[in-house]
Amino acid sequence: MTVDTIERLVEKIRDDREHGASELARLCLSGLAEHTRTADTQDAADLKESLLELAHRLQQSRPTMAPITNLIDRWLQGVSDSKPDDFRKRAADHAEALIGQSKDAAAKAAAHAADLIGPNKTIITHSLSSTVVSVFELLGSRAKAIITESRPPGEGRLLAEKLSSLGVATDFISDQQMGLFVQHADVALVGADTIANDGSVINKAGTYLLALAARERGIPFYVCCESFKYSQLAAASIPLEDHDPREFAAPKLPNITPHNVYFDITPVHLVTAWITETGVQGEFSPKTGYSDNYREE
Amino acid sequence: MTVDTIERLVEKIRDDREHGASELARLCLSGLAEHTRTADTQDAADLKESLLELAHRLQQSRPTMAPITNLIDRWLQGVSDSKPDDFRKRAADHAEALIGQSKDAAAKAAAHAADLIGPNKTIITHSLSSTVVSVFELLGSRAKAIITESRPPGEGRLLAEKLSSLGVATDFISDQQMGLFVQHADVALVGADTIANDGSVINKAGTYLLALAARERGIPFYVCCESFKYSQLAAASIPLEDHDPREFAAPKLPNITPHNVYFDITPVHLVTAWITETGVQGEFSPKTGYSDNYREE
Repeated sequence: MTVDTIERLVEKIRDDREHGASELARLCLSGLAEHTRTADTQDAADLKESLLELAHRLQQSRPTMAPITNLIDRWLQGVSDSKPDDFRKRAADHAEALIGQSKDAAAKAAAHAADLIGPNKTIITHSLSSTVVSVFELLGSRAKAIITESRPPGEGRLLAEKLSSLGVATDFISDQQMGLFVQHADVALVGADTIANDGSVINKAGTYLLALAARERGIPFYVCCESFKYSQLAAASIPLEDHDPREFAAPKLPNITPHNVYFDITPVHLVTAWITETGVQGEFSPKTGYSDNYREE
Repeated sequence: MTVDTIERLVEKIRDDREHGASELARLCLSGLAEHTRTADTQDAADLKESLLELAHRLQQSRPTMAPITNLIDRWLQGVSDSKPDDFRKRAADHAEALIGQSKDAAAKAAAHAADLIGPNKTIITHSLSSTVVSVFELLGSRAKAIITESRPPGEGRLLAEKLSSLGVATDFISDQQMGLFVQHADVALVGADTIANDGSVINKAGTYLLALAARERGIPFYVCCESFKYSQLAAASIPLEDHDPREFAAPKLPNITPHNVYFDITPVHLVTAWITETGVQGEFSPKTGYSDNYREE
């Protein structure tokens, strides 16, 4: 593993605007596995040191996304004590096992959400969540959807492609039409980048507005995600990524300060239920977080 | 006045995405005045007939915008009874008088808003309202602003240019960041395209989301406009313009129906006060509408 390939992986994760937090966390793990297997260093101690360094850099690359921290923490717990000679195999196997656990948890969460919502409902969502896509895969053309452009960069277009191919009748709206269209939905359903320690939901900016509109219109607001998204931190202490305002062509003018904060915080009182691999929780309990459900070894 | 010039004026009003409802209503009146004065027809009865036809077509061009209906109604009331020979002068003079009344009303409304808000406050707004711009002109660099891109088409960039030149320290955000940034504002202030007969506010899509976030954060939500914006219609019976979804590059895919509704409805219970030329009303009263304040003749 060269310095170059490490840099490329960190940059790829940092600059990705298409994948949700779960998918990026799994990409981190598969990167760790791949680099472990393909590293050309012959010195086992060197390899271990450079992999641990890469793991820490990946954790810092997307500070708003708890699953990256959590899954790499879990990986580190599993491999840190390995003797250098065992490390290479252990590190790769463990990363792949964790990818499997994460996918399994997300699939179970999606199944619980599909059961809860049931067929013939109109689901409004915001941004692109791989777990929400799984819910639509389970419901198929029995569901209807209202989806948002989700700028910047507009990952709602990718969701539109997926729903189109699933045969889900879908209304596609620009973000600011959410307030108007929520009245046509039976349920609001979103994924999450992070669930803070009080149950508040950190997700793509605009999610908070959708939750407010859902409450106003009397429809439930569900968040569905694997519990690797649960953070031990308070929402206020989780940094919200602030990206380049050129992504939405903000003006450059005297006295004008453009912002491009990618995430917002939906407070706990706006969440009707948290849906994870363990089921549906109408009251938030941090105990449903990954630390209890996926403790291994 | 040729058929061509009539068509051009109607198209110009219908396709305009930069001006608010007040400015467009005044453009309609100045178009009526100009065409009256420059019409090359020598037959007074023909002229009157074609002008009345133009007036009705302009009224239908932007069905969501009450001031276009109201000001042209007022113009029609003032000129319909004119004898053909008096019509040319009367029609132009009356249109210009109404433009003056509308500008005067908007200026008075802005002055009441500036008095109410006072200096050293951070004002969050959405879309581009000429009346809100007047409020910032009155407060100058003593105000701070948080403004939105306001897509499509993004008229918030024009507002950024105005505030930049006024020296107002301004945060510029994309629409979906409203929920996050409202916590940094002292007051939410918007203009309106129409105030429905129950006091609900029809304005650029996203206004409803701002009002929800303002209530959630405990800051006042003010609407400031001349009372020519007051409609006698219920909000539900006012058509909300639905424009070409290509304006925001919506995808063209099977099963996907894109929408581009320009306006939403902020219900009356989310409005803290209505600010018109007559002052600040904390409870909605349709009597403050233009019919009582600008009755002439």
